[in-house]
Amino acid sequence: MARSTGPDGDGPRPPRVVALGGGHGLHASLSALRRVTTDVTAVVTVADDGGSSGRLRQELGVLPPGDLRMALAALCGDDEWGHTWSQVLQHRFSSEGELHGHAVGNLLIVALWELLGDSVAGLDWVGQLLGAHGRVLPMSSVPLEIAAEVSGLDPERPDALTTVRGQVACASTSGRVRSVSLIPEAPPASPQAVKAVREADWIVFGPGSWFTSVLPHLLVPDLAHALVTTRARRLVTLNLSPQRGETDDFRPETYLEVLREHAPKLGVDVVLADRGTVDDAAPLRAVTRELGGRLELDDLSHSDGSPRHDAELLAAAFERILVD
Amino acid sequence: MARSTGPDGDGPRPPRVVALGGGHGLHASLSALRRVTTDVTAVVTVADDGGSSGRLRQELGVLPPGDLRMALAALCGDDEWGHTWSQVLQHRFSSEGELHGHAVGNLLIVALWELLGDSVAGLDWVGQLLGAHGRVLPMSSVPLEIAAEVSGLDPERPDALTTVRGQVACASTSGRVRSVSLIPEAPPASPQAVKAVREADWIVFGPGSWFTSVLPHLLVPDLAHALVTTRARRLVTLNLSPQRGETDDFRPETYLEVLREHAPKLGVDVVLADRGTVDDAAPLRAVTRELGGRLELDDLSHSDGSPRHDAELLAAAFERILVD
Repeated sequence: MARSTGPDGDGPRPPRVVALGGGHGLHASLSALRRVTTDVTAVVTVADDGGSSGRLRQELGVLPPGDLRMALAALCGDDEWGHTWSQVLQHRFSSEGELHGHAVGNLLIVALWELLGDSVAGLDWVGQLLGAHGRVLPMSSVPLEIAAEVSGLDPERPDALTTVRGQVACASTSGRVRSVSLIPEAPPASPQAVKAVREADWIVFGPGSWFTSVLPHLLVPDLAHALVTTRARRLVTLNLSPQRGETDDFRPETYLEVLREHAPKLGVDVVLADRGTVDDAAPLRAVTRELGGRLELDDLSHSDGSPRHDAELLAAAFERILVD
Repeated sequence: MARSTGPDGDGPRPPRVVALGGGHGLHASLSALRRVTTDVTAVVTVADDGGSSGRLRQELGVLPPGDLRMALAALCGDDEWGHTWSQVLQHRFSSEGELHGHAVGNLLIVALWELLGDSVAGLDWVGQLLGAHGRVLPMSSVPLEIAAEVSGLDPERPDALTTVRGQVACASTSGRVRSVSLIPEAPPASPQAVKAVREADWIVFGPGSWFTSVLPHLLVPDLAHALVTTRARRLVTLNLSPQRGETDDFRPETYLEVLREHAPKLGVDVVLADRGTVDDAAPLRAVTRELGGRLELDDLSHSDGSPRHDAELLAAAFERILVD
């Protein structure tokens, strides 16, 4: 892609990138993207029902803040100020008491929401506090629940589908997730997220929990419509290893097949996968081509051998794909 | 007092003021002082055992943060940034659950303490966040407990003394507090607080809960020694009305008599009292003179009739006393 030029034509402007996901996958993607462009918008799932987020959601009736907090922390400023406040946001209380397990950033975000009455404004204030390299938005303005159709839960009827409700239950099911849906079924999209998708140069899907963090965006009607019709190019970053339960036994191309099942009209320009993870590139390349895109294989995994992306390697791949 | 001049003699510098107290009284004093000088240091009691602070202290073994938070909020910057973060700090969760009653600023301060391992550094970070007009320090580096000798609890022996432990119990006793002490008995002073007292132009005592917020500073040996020996002048601001329990039936001069009992060597330069609160100035003036000071009577109370100081009237009085 040629570098875009600014409105005044006075030189290249950084690519506008919208990253979709939630949790640790989105954190990895943002940690890399911040090295590549200054114009990142994260659009984050709001269906978490576990841990600190789940408790806050239940106690105070707010959006689950955890994935939003983690995305903000990933985009923190480079100086001592940004790093310190990012650490404060990520700090968790540890005790025998009522605060145990709560992340401080979750409490701060919720306080801003209660005070300002506006989830996007609250997140923008935290972004300003951190000197964040970009913006973090919820995908929907209301808290969501994820429901999954799961097979393999009944040993006597291995193909029978059972409905499992809740992000934690879906992500940790011992069966195999076949599809997901949202409750409520057609939730309102965040208007700012829709606008960001429309105005982007690139949309980045994944990595992340496929059914519970990456696909939910395609189930929010206005957001899905924007994702399908935007003039932005679309990049899909595959996971390094299947996630126990959710994507057990997934082959690399299975991620794309599942994506297509949930959003048949979605075109894909580039699929980025870790070379070491792909034993046989042929079927992956074939499905990528059916979606209208090209396959990029790269060394992306962390040198410590853990199944996570190395931020610098991922940034180098993004740089080559998004900017050069 | 003539305006101090800077080290280069290139014009007046703002007076260095150290304000002692805790809770709402200190908040009132700081809200006025910030209008008078840019060089304020609050030295705050750390003996609170009630509410959000009491719970945090018990659950996490930290200094009670509430009075420190309130002092920081009073010193917040004048712009939208300072005001918003001050409101966030003061925001309290309200629910049927575990977070109910916790002030967000308390949680943030405690998180910084856990992260940095240094109570003063943590408070300085919050001060920076707020763009605070000054600095807030704990009077001691360890959590304290207040014990009071109280009379009148046994109707058959009205002069018998009972020991009451804990700030909440002392402040709300139905008896009459005669004296207070600290547990542990000779706690370590915050070195930064001692230094601030030594380098100050003025020390401001009160207003505030007399036994539980104002006098405790005089029971921390190194801090008391600095308060008695500093070259700074000393101003005592009297309360507008007796506090139920703690200072029931106090006459204006009683505050000074109790102060003298707890710190016999402490000289006082100015006693500031609300004109409407003082029916008979003669005994107050007499005790003030015995302490080495002069009495200033002013209209200081809020126009809404509540027994609290009006920040602008108090600032005008401070301006006249501390600066002119």
